[in-house]
This record gives sequence, structure tokens and C-alpha cells, in this order.
Amino acid sequence: MSDPQYLSREKLSTSYTYDKRSGWRRFRALNLCRGMYHDVRRRLPYYWSDIRDALTYRTIASTIRMYFVNILPAMAYTLDMYRRTGEFYGINEALFSSALAAMVFSILGAQPLTIVGITGLISLFNYTIYDIVVIYEPAIYANFMCWTAIWAAIFHWVVAVCNLCDYMRYVTDFSSESFGAYVGIIYCIKGVEELVNEFTVYGPTAGFMSCMIAILYFLSIYGLEWLGSSTVCRPWFRGILADYAYVIGTIFWVGFAHIPGNLKETGISFIPISRAFYPTQPRGWLIHFWELEVKWVFAALPFGFLVMLLFYYDHNISSLTAQARQFPLKKPAGFHWDFFLLGCTTFLAGITGIPMPNGLVPQAPVHTDSLTIYETDLHIIPTSEGEGAELRRPIVKATAVVEQRVSHFLMGLAIMGTMTGPLLIVLHTMPAAVFAGVFFIVGWGSIESNGILQKMIFLLRENRFIQRDDPLLRVRRRKIILYISCQAIGVAACVAISQTIAAIGFPILIIALIPFRVWIIPKWFSQEELDVLDDLTADNSAVLGSLGGPPKFPAVELTETENYGLERRYSEQRRGITHQRMGSIRR
Amino acid sequence: MSDPQYLSREKLSTSYTYDKRSGWRRFRALNLCRGMYHDVRRRLPYYWSDIRDALTYRTIASTIRMYFVNILPAMAYTLDMYRRTGEFYGINEALFSSALAAMVFSILGAQPLTIVGITGLISLFNYTIYDIVVIYEPAIYANFMCWTAIWAAIFHWVVAVCNLCDYMRYVTDFSSESFGAYVGIIYCIKGVEELVNEFTVYGPTAGFMSCMIAILYFLSIYGLEWLGSSTVCRPWFRGILADYAYVIGTIFWVGFAHIPGNLKETGISFIPISRAFYPTQPRGWLIHFWELEVKWVFAALPFGFLVMLLFYYDHNISSLTAQARQFPLKKPAGFHWDFFLLGCTTFLAGITGIPMPNGLVPQAPVHTDSLTIYETDLHIIPTSEGEGAELRRPIVKATAVVEQRVSHFLMGLAIMGTMTGPLLIVLHTMPAAVFAGVFFIVGWGSIESNGILQKMIFLLRENRFIQRDDPLLRVRRRKIILYISCQAIGVAACVAISQTIAAIGFPILIIALIPFRVWIIPKWFSQEELDVLDDLTADNSAVLGSLGGPPKFPAVELTETENYGLERRYSEQRRGITHQRMGSIRR
Repeated sequence: MSDPQYLSREKLSTSYTYDKRSGWRRFRALNLCRGMYHDVRRRLPYYWSDIRDALTYRTIASTIRMYFVNILPAMAYTLDMYRRTGEFYGINEALFSSALAAMVFSILGAQPLTIVGITGLISLFNYTIYDIVVIYEPAIYANFMCWTAIWAAIFHWVVAVCNLCDYMRYVTDFSSESFGAYVGIIYCIKGVEELVNEFTVYGPTAGFMSCMIAILYFLSIYGLEWLGSSTVCRPWFRGILADYAYVIGTIFWVGFAHIPGNLKETGISFIPISRAFYPTQPRGWLIHFWELEVKWVFAALPFGFLVMLLFYYDHNISSLTAQARQFPLKKPAGFHWDFFLLGCTTFLAGITGIPMPNGLVPQAPVHTDSLTIYETDLHIIPTSEGEGAELRRPIVKATAVVEQRVSHFLMGLAIMGTMTGPLLIVLHTMPAAVFAGVFFIVGWGSIESNGILQKMIFLLRENRFIQRDDPLLRVRRRKIILYISCQAIGVAACVAISQTIAAIGFPILIIALIPFRVWIIPKWFSQEELDVLDDLTADNSAVLGSLGGPPKFPAVELTETENYGLERRYSEQRRGITHQRMGSIRR
Repeated sequence: MSDPQYLSREKLSTSYTYDKRSGWRRFRALNLCRGMYHDVRRRLPYYWSDIRDALTYRTIASTIRMYFVNILPAMAYTLDMYRRTGEFYGINEALFSSALAAMVFSILGAQPLTIVGITGLISLFNYTIYDIVVIYEPAIYANFMCWTAIWAAIFHWVVAVCNLCDYMRYVTDFSSESFGAYVGIIYCIKGVEELVNEFTVYGPTAGFMSCMIAILYFLSIYGLEWLGSSTVCRPWFRGILADYAYVIGTIFWVGFAHIPGNLKETGISFIPISRAFYPTQPRGWLIHFWELEVKWVFAALPFGFLVMLLFYYDHNISSLTAQARQFPLKKPAGFHWDFFLLGCTTFLAGITGIPMPNGLVPQAPVHTDSLTIYETDLHIIPTSEGEGAELRRPIVKATAVVEQRVSHFLMGLAIMGTMTGPLLIVLHTMPAAVFAGVFFIVGWGSIESNGILQKMIFLLRENRFIQRDDPLLRVRRRKIILYISCQAIGVAACVAISQTIAAIGFPILIIALIPFRVWIIPKWFSQEELDVLDDLTADNSAVLGSLGGPPKFPAVELTETENYGLERRYSEQRRGITHQRMGSIRR
């Protein structure tokens, strides 16, 4: 990192700004491609180091972990999507989409840490559109989805060219925690739906066995990750547990479902596979999108816009959380360029009839976590009890992140390998019950570490056992209740709408939380209260540099980002940072 | 407690001793009935206060909790015994036995805190004898068991008259932890057997559903008890959770198994019941023991001796742990008298053909716990970090125990109520799966809090995070390993023998741990090491007073009981005492 080209990093991080611009140049949207140009100029000098820096063990561990952590939920969602889109999207489509996204973003992406793949929300989108389309004309679903993607791609490009990603710098924990809770709840609901499907399609024996496997899978992974973050055994052993919890748990429970006897004979459901490299439906890979009537082409436009809105929030928040404040990142971000690329993959996904990939909210930060070198330090607190008395506490510190694009690339190669015939058959051995377990562990991870739940626990805790220097004590209890109520209402609205045919509208709700935080929240809370309750999701200057500098909240005279996140700083000072558990947005 | 009659308590506690006796009077066994006489003389003055002191809410909470905690494992064992003794012992026998024991010991017992009922070990005994008897002559099982009980009763009376219970004062954590681990493992094995039975008899659907219910029941109770010992919510609310975890969990999961649909239709097994107040087999309540051939009468003698050995250890250890060091008991104990009474109940159980009751290891200390008034105090540790810095910790203190005999009596009445027709039908709604869950929660509670496991975790923990003042650091690691290996070998031997037809011999193994601790262990460990590693299970002078004073270990010149249990004292000083979880012998 001592090459002369890096000396200008600080300068590059701050060169993209609108502070000193005047006339029409003041308007972001009119400075066409300015963000993308700066993104590339900023990141390109690091390209060689992105490959060279990868020569460590972390890259291998990260590749294996991300392969499982990426492919398991993708398969889980595909199972769901397969059933609910008239079997249009199958395993081959999902693998193709994941591999395409991994290749494009690992080679061309400005921020290769952001893992891109199939999310639960695009699955929700696809089957909700299917529900709407079948009302009119089931046969046009493929072409309609293709046009939705084409429109979405066009909107992506417009957003990227007009530098609109800049507004993501206003994302604080207020909205990202709400989004995390929403995603967590949806995951858990999907897990239950998966088990219910087992009951209704394969009968009660398969159903109960699946419930048992899903619960035990959840407990195994949870237990392994818990052990991995304890102080038991040597650090290298804990590291292995943390890295390979999913691998160990998945292999064990897949094997368990195949033990001869009651288990094997029960006939629970396994992942449905079809001929390798061919689409699930009898069609070519190219969708004949030119065969769609013009009225449907334009009917797809609003859907395309909603997909763009979803991706605008979901992809950028994945990228933000992958570069969140707890990771000591050194290399710069590139939101505009990556969003442009996302438009390209959306277009490709559309014309080949595969699910549109985008940034993965739980997986992207887990990727950074898997590349982070953690050190568990000993923190000795001298006490005045007795002679030489002291308390010994482990404090976890993130010392460095292996920032490179090789682990993402290798993971993509592994997914392409999985698309071949023999490995598809290995995939077919995986019971749907394991995927229900994946939903639970990912969903609960997102809920457990969520700031909303943490604040609720704070409110429930008996007052006298709260450390007196906890910053939350500086905020009145009813203000904390008001704050988490706002978040909870947002979450509840999103969850409710997701269960209806209006589900495709939920990106509007989620995005509305950002302006709500910027304009409404400061009217109800003082700046001191917000300093404790809220925090910028990413405050690294390398990240904010790509978004046109730190955000300017209307109510605050001076933008003092230094004061933000008192509660988080307090927690980190006392306990160190916690590992990124799969599924948790914060911490 | 200010009555004049109590003033001599300290004197009464120390009046039963052999220290200053000479001639034939030095030999305990020759001082016939001396222990029993002192037991009665010591306890009788407290009889009125045992009733008067019961007028508090604790008695009600204790009665409800103990009813569930006593009857659930008893039913669970009876299910097992019912199947494995040719359906000789059924629910009516188990209820009769529990009610009889509760009535006798609550009214006449010297220490009414010791809950007496049906243990897993007597169930193991009964079906192992069945396995042996059926080899020769299945028809004599009832009469043979009766004679076993008669012989056992005679041996009980001999032991009580000859003051042999005195040797229980040598019981330290070395053997009581081993016994706890053994009991815990047996419980877990029984839980698995219960589920396997569901698979083989009722088919895989019932099997998987039972597995699911057992796991979720375990998690519910564990979660409720965990919440109850946290610092969340108000103390009274936590108290309710701790008191009624079993009640809430059991009612919920029994109801769950009856939800119409897949759950109700699966047809899992429920407790088998028969006509109220009648024996399960078509017989009268009196066993015709005079119809047994003389050769079989004498064949039953060694079995009776083994039953006595089992009860000698099991009943007395229940009584010891019910009066263990963490409970601030004020009223005296009475081991000899209670063992005499146990002989009487054994005799009655024998001639009526019901399972022989004895002291319940997990339940007896839970009874004392349910009567203990805990206060969670705030412990502020001043630190030298920053101005006014401090750490806040909850410290649980046991301030008093409601020592009385009413809760035990009411619990007995409740069990008698359960014997009536309508309530038997309520019992019949309980699925066997819930009992598998009971086995798991009780078994795991015994293992989790066990000193053997705690020392293993200590050895596994990364050295730098261990508090420097932890007394275990004063003992070399290989000595700790040797110590827990001795315990583990004892446990493994007992578990192994329990799976064979030689199972009835396991009391010999368990009891052998006491002389092993007294004569062999001091040769391998220095007194300083034993002070850290081991501890008297009960060190209250009111308890030791009934056993002829504190123990004298051969290797130690001066009996300094003050030095024992450094590790335990250290833990209590730092964290306070922990609630007695169902199934844990220590803490």
C-alpha cells in the first residue's frame, strides 16, 4: 500500500463533491456520468492490488464460506419461486443468474466486496408479478418479465448517469435497521411456508421430519457460531468454527436426511433439478421479447420502475453495509459505476429469462466479515476490589480487511461448476427442510442483532443493572419508545404489504423511510437524542467520498458526523465489535 | 424464631457426637437408635413452626411448582416402567406411591423439605429385576418384588437403628457431581428411548412429531428459566417465570398436541390410564406375598440389599442437596429418622405392589429453591477507567428459606386428587413426547451445571481470559484433568452397567466413590488442591449435626472445613448463587 499511486487516495476520496460548484453544475443530475467517471478513476489504480492482495488464507476461507452463504438462500428462494411462478424459474436459472452476477461484479465492479445474487425480495417480486399476469394472460409471463427487466435496466442507467446514488449517503440506521428487521421477518415467514408446503404436498410425516431437521439445523449453526465467538479453545479453532459453521451444519444435516431407515424412507422433498445448462422450461435461453404486444410492453414500464427502486435501495444498502463503519476499509467505493453495471446484469437477466440479481443484504457484509482479520484482545479493567484486583474481558478488534476481488471471482467459478450435471445431482440431495433452516438462521440473525430489538431489550431491562454511562440513558424513555415505534410501524407496513398482491409496492415504503428520517424525524427529536439513537450506516470517508461527501441534514447547522452513533461507540468501547453473523445488518 | 425452645438449637445441633465417647459407646453401630432419638428430639420442637411458618405466598408457588416437577418425571418413568415390566406398574401405582410418600414424609419426616417420590433409578431397578425374573418364572414377579421390598425395608431399619447414615457426611462434590452427571445422562438416554418407542410403536409420523414437540418443549422451558434468571423486566415478573416455567411450558405443549389438523390426527401416544383407584393389573391392592416359594423369598434378599444401598445413597443425597450449603437453613436435619421412615414406606410399597418411593435428587433441592427468598442485589465494582466509572453486576442472594411442611403436604393432596377419575382423564391428554422433553430438560439441567463440565470448560477456555484470582489456577492443569477423569470414569462405568442386566449393581459403584474419595484421592492430591477442586456437599452445621459432626478425612490433621470449596466461594462472591435449575445437583 506504499505505492505512489495510493498517496492520492485521500484526495481521490474527496475529489467528487458538489460543494464548490455553481450554476447548472450545482445540480447533480445535470453532471452526467460525473459519479461514474470518478468511481472508475478512483478505483482503477487499485485493480492490480485487488488481485495481488488475495494471496492469503482468508481468501480461501472466504470463498468457501461465501459459496455456501450465497448459494443456500438462493436455492431456498428459488424453491419458493419455482412453485409460485408456474415453474418458470428453476435451479438452473438461479445458478446462471448467480454465476453471471459474480463474474460481472468480481471482474468489473468498483466494489468487489459487494456480493451480488438472488434475494428474497426479487423472488417476492417475480411471483407477485406472476400472480398479476396470470389474471390476464399467463402465456406472456416470460416476455413480460423480460420487458420489466429491460425497463428496469434503462432506469438503472438513468440513475447511474444522473448521479442519483448520491442520496444513499442519507441512509442511517433508522432505515437500514427497519429494512433488516423487515428482511428478517420475511425470511422467517418463508421458512414456515417451506415447512407448510412440506405438510401439504408430501404429507405429515415429511412435514414433521422437515420441522425437526429445520429446528436442529438452526440450533447447530447457531451453536457453532456462538462457540466461534466465545473465548473457548484457541483462536485458530474458533476461527475455523466461525468460517465453516454453514459448511459443517449443512453437510451434517443433508447427510442426516439420507440415513437409511425412518429418515430415508420418509420421502421429504429435495431440490428439483432439470437437465444441466438448459432452462427449466422447454425454451431457448433467449427470451423472444419482440413477440410481446406493445400494450404489454408499456404495461411493464411501471414494474420496471419498481424493480429499479427496489434495487436502488437493496443493492446500495448491501454495498453500504459491506463497507460499514466497523470494517477498517482502505480502498474506495464506487456506487454509481456499480449501479450502472447492475443495469447491465438486469438487462442480461431479462433477455435470458433468469431472476434478476442484485446486492445481497445479509451476504455482502458477511463477505467483508469473512475477509476481516479479527483479533481478540485482552482488556484488563483494574478495579478497586482487593489487592491487584482486575476484570478480564475479551475485546474483538478488526485489524484489517483483505480487500480483493479474487474470492468473489472464485465463488462465481464454484457456482458455474455447480451448474454441471454431476454437481447438480449433489445439489439434488439437499432436502427442502435444510432450506427452511437456512431461512430461520438468516432471518433470526437479522432480527437478533437488530437495533430495534436491542433498544427494546434496553427498555425492558431493570434500570439498576444498566451501566450508568450507557448513552441511551441520556434519552428519555418515551423518546426511545417513539423512535422504535416509527421503525416498527415501517416494518409492520412492509411485512403486511408483502403478503398481498400489492407486494411489489414495498420498495416505495422502504425508500420513503429515508426522506422521513431527513425531514420528519428531526422535528420530533433533538440532535442530541439522534446522536444517541441513530448512526450513519457507513461513515468511512472512502465510502462517503463516492457519494459526494457526508450528508447534510437540514436541521443541523454543522455536519458533525463525529458525534453520531454514541450508543454504538459506547458498545464497541466496552465489548469490541461483534462478528457479522449471517443475516445481521448491524454489527 | 425467638421462642426460648430455639435457643438450644446450636446445642442440639452438636449434641449428637461420638467425639467424647469411650468403650463400646465409641462404636456407632452399637449405640442403637441413638441417631433416631436425637433426630426426633432435635426436630420435634419445630413442628408447630413448620405449620405456622407456611403462611406465605412462597408456599403456594412452591406447591404448584413441585406438583409439576414431581409428577412429570414420575409419569415419564412410569411410562417406561409400564412397558418394561409387563404392564405391572401403571399410572395408578405411580400416583399412589407418590401420594403415600408425600403424606408420610410431610407429616412424619424430620426434614420435610426432602421431596420423596419415584426416581428413574427405581424404574431401572424394577425393570431389570423383571428382566431377570422372566428368565425363570414370570408369574412370581409381583410377589418377588414384594419380598425384595420387605428385605429392603428390614435393611433400612437396621441401617437407621445402627446410625449408619452418619457416613453420609463424607459425601463431597466428588461423588455427588458424578452422581449428578450419571443421572443426567440416564435422563437424556430415557428421553431418546421414549422417542424411539414412538417411532417403533406408533410409526414415523408420530415419531417425528414427538421429536419436534420434545425439542420445542425443551427450548421453551430452557428459555423461560433463562429469562427468569436474567435482569430483564421487574423482579416479580422474573419470579413468576422461574416459578411457573414448567406449568406454562407443559400446558402450552399439551394443548399444542391437540390442535385439530395434522397435529391431532397424527395419533401420537398419550399416557395410558386405567380405572381410578384400582391397580393396573386385575389384582387387589394387597400382594399375596405369603404365596411365594421359600427359595424365591431368599433369592429376593440380595436384591433387597441392593435396593437399600441405592436408597441409602439416593435418598440421603437428596436430603443433603435439599439442605445444601447455598440455602440459609435454620432448622435441623434428621437423616436417621427419615431413613427409618423410608424403610416403612418401602415396606408399604412392597406389600401393595407399587413402585418404592425415595428421595428425588433433582426435585428435593428444587423444592428448597422454590421456598427460598432470593434477592437480586446490585453489585457496583468501581473501576479506574475514566471518571466515576463503575461496573454494575447483579448478585443473587438467598436471604431466607420458608422451612415448613405444608407445601409438601399440599402437593401430596394434589397428587391424591389426580388419582380420581376426572383428573386421570386430564392426565391422559398428555402426550409421551412431552415426557421426552421433560427427560431432556431435567437431564441437561443436571449436566449443564455439573462441576465436571464446568471444570472441562475451564480447561478449554483460552488462558488469558481467565480471571487471575480464579482458585482453579492454583492447581496444575494435569491435576484438574486427573480429578475430572476419576469422576468421568465413575460416571462412564455407571452408565455402561445401566444398559446391561447387571444394572441393579450400580449402587455399589456409586457408593464406592465415597471411600474412594476418602482413602485414594488424598494420596494423589494435596490438601490445597482438594480445597479448590472439592467441597462438602452440605456444610451447614444443622445438617452435619445430624450426621455426628463434620467429617474427618484421614490425610488431614485438622478438619478445616473453612478452607473447603474455594472455587465455589469464589464464584459465589463474584456472581452470587445461581437458582437451582430443575435437574441440577450443584448450584
